[in-house]
Amino acid sequence: MTKTMTAIWLEESGIRLRRDLAVPEPPPGETLVRVLLAGICRTDLELVRGYYPWIGVLGHEFVGIVERGPEDLLGRRVVGEINAVCRQCVTCRAGRPTHCERRTVLGIIGRDGAFAHYLTLPVENLHLVPDSVSDEAATFVEPLAAALEVGEQVSVRPSERVLVVGDGKLGQLVARVLALSGIDLAVLGRHPRKLEMLERLGIPTLLPDAVVEARYDLVVECAGNDSGFATALDAVRPRGTLVMKSTYAGRLTLDASRIVVDEITVVGSRCGPFAPALRLLSEGRVAVDELIDQRYPLERGLEAFAAAETKGTLKVLIAPDGAPEA
Amino acid sequence: MTKTMTAIWLEESGIRLRRDLAVPEPPPGETLVRVLLAGICRTDLELVRGYYPWIGVLGHEFVGIVERGPEDLLGRRVVGEINAVCRQCVTCRAGRPTHCERRTVLGIIGRDGAFAHYLTLPVENLHLVPDSVSDEAATFVEPLAAALEVGEQVSVRPSERVLVVGDGKLGQLVARVLALSGIDLAVLGRHPRKLEMLERLGIPTLLPDAVVEARYDLVVECAGNDSGFATALDAVRPRGTLVMKSTYAGRLTLDASRIVVDEITVVGSRCGPFAPALRLLSEGRVAVDELIDQRYPLERGLEAFAAAETKGTLKVLIAPDGAPEA
Repeated sequence: MTKTMTAIWLEESGIRLRRDLAVPEPPPGETLVRVLLAGICRTDLELVRGYYPWIGVLGHEFVGIVERGPEDLLGRRVVGEINAVCRQCVTCRAGRPTHCERRTVLGIIGRDGAFAHYLTLPVENLHLVPDSVSDEAATFVEPLAAALEVGEQVSVRPSERVLVVGDGKLGQLVARVLALSGIDLAVLGRHPRKLEMLERLGIPTLLPDAVVEARYDLVVECAGNDSGFATALDAVRPRGTLVMKSTYAGRLTLDASRIVVDEITVVGSRCGPFAPALRLLSEGRVAVDELIDQRYPLERGLEAFAAAETKGTLKVLIAPDGAPEA
Repeated sequence: MTKTMTAIWLEESGIRLRRDLAVPEPPPGETLVRVLLAGICRTDLELVRGYYPWIGVLGHEFVGIVERGPEDLLGRRVVGEINAVCRQCVTCRAGRPTHCERRTVLGIIGRDGAFAHYLTLPVENLHLVPDSVSDEAATFVEPLAAALEVGEQVSVRPSERVLVVGDGKLGQLVARVLALSGIDLAVLGRHPRKLEMLERLGIPTLLPDAVVEARYDLVVECAGNDSGFATALDAVRPRGTLVMKSTYAGRLTLDASRIVVDEITVVGSRCGPFAPALRLLSEGRVAVDELIDQRYPLERGLEAFAAAETKGTLKVLIAPDGAPEA
C-alpha cells in the first residue's frame, strides 16, 4: 500500500494542506529525504501571489535525513541545492548548470518541494550538514548561499562602499555576509527591530528618508519593489554596480537614462554556492538564529504562511513532525 | 565690436535658428574652434523632445579648425571629447573623468554645442585629425568612440555570439566595430535599406519577427525603446550581458524577474575613447560615408533637424559655411 504524507500544495486557486499525497518514489540517481525543518522564503510568498505558475508542493529551504539513496548517505543529515539539472544541454555544458534549460527546481519548477514529510533530490544536489550546524541554522544554507552569490558574480573589494537596500530576510543575510569582508557597509531599511539587529552586529543602518547620494560602489537590492529599486539606483555611483537579489513579481519601471548616462552595471543574482554557506554557519561567522520569528508544525502550515505574510516578520519555519514511515 | 554667429538654439519652446549669438570667448585653458561640419545624433533629437532640460546651442559631433589656443594647435583640424571635466572632484580623482560631478557636456549640459560657427572646448579635449580622415568621417569620431565604449566595459571574446538590436546610426557603428573582432555577430532591425548595408559588409541580419532565442552571450541595445529593450533582454543567454547604448527619454518598463532568475548583467554605456576611433577611421577599418544621408548648411539647420526626424534617415550633417571671422 502506498504511504501518504502531508504537504502544502499550491494550485491556481491558492495554497491548501493536502494529506493525500503519496510519499514520492525517488527516480534513479535520486534520493528520498525526510524533511526535518523547512523555511518560508519570499519566493514562496511570490509564488502564492502568482509570480510563476507552479502547481505542486511548495518549499525549497530545508534540512532533512536521507532515507533512501547511496549507503554512505543513509541516515545522514543533509541540505540540498534546489536546481536539478541535466548536465547535457548547451547551458550545462557551458558550465552554468544552475541555468540548465531542462532544470527542475525544488518547490518552484516541475519538482515537489520541502513543505512535506518527504522530498526527492538527485544525489549530487545533497550536502552533508556538520554536527556543529543546528537544524534551524541549516534551513538558512540555501538563502545564505544566495547571499554569497553576490560575491560569485561581482568582485567586492575590501575598500569599497556598499549599501544593502532592504532589511528583510535576504537583506539581513546579504549584509551579514558582506560585513565579513571589511567593506564600508550600510543597510537601508524601514523596520526598527530589523535595523537594530544589524546595528548590534556593528553594521550601520539608514532609514528610507536618509539622503542617499550616488556614492556607493556597490548596491545590493533586497527590497523587491519599484521603490526599493529606485532607491538602490539612486545610491550607485557612476560606473558602480547594482545587484538585484529580490524576486520580483511583475514588471519593474526604472529610469533607464540613469543607467546609460552613469554607465551603471545591473546584475541579476539568484542561487549560490552551498559549500561556503555551510562553512560560514559551521564556523559561527554568520548569525542566523535571531532571524527566526516563528515555528509551526506542518499540520498548521497555512497559519505559517499567514504569519510569514504579516508585515515585519522574518523567518518562519515549518516542521513536519511525525512523518509516516516511508 | 563683438562678432556674432549663427547657431541652432534649444529652449523650452523648441529649437530655433539664432543669428545673434556672440562668438564665444574661450576661458583660460580652452580653445576656440571654428566648426567645419557637425552631425545630428539621436541624443539631439531626444533633447528637442525634452530628454534633458538644456537651454543653449545643440550639437556635439563635429570637426573643426582651432582658431585660438596653444600655438601647436592653431589652424589644425580637430575633433573634441564632449565632457569638460574638473580633474578635482572625487569622481575625477577616482579615474572616471567622463563622469565628473561638475562636468559640462558639449551641446548637452552647461556648454554651448557644435551647431554653430564656433564652439569652445578645453585644450585637453581636442584630438588632431589625420589627413587621411575626411571632414565627413571625422564627424563620426564621437559616435564611433561611443560604439567602442562597449569593448571598454565588457570583455568581448572572439568566440562569443553577439546580437546588436537596432539598425540605426548607433547600431550601424556598434555592428561595424564588433564585426572587426571575428565574433559571431548579427544585427536585428526593421529597415531593409539599413540591413542591406550591413549584409554588404558580411554582417548577418534579422528582422524583428525573427525568433530570437536566449542564446546570445552579448546583446547591445541600440534601438532606444521599450520593445527594443524587451527584444534584447529576450535574446541574452542566462548569465549573459546586455549593453544599453541608447539614449532613453523617459522611463523603461522591463521584466525584472528575467534579469534576476537568469542572472543577466545589464551595462549602461555612454561616451568612449577617441584615439581608437580615429585610428579605425584613419586605417579605413570602419566605413562611415554610406551612413550620411543628407547635408545642410547651418542656415537651413531646422530643415536638417526635420530631415533627421524623418523615419529611416541615417546621419544628417550640418555645415556652418561662411563663418564670420572670429
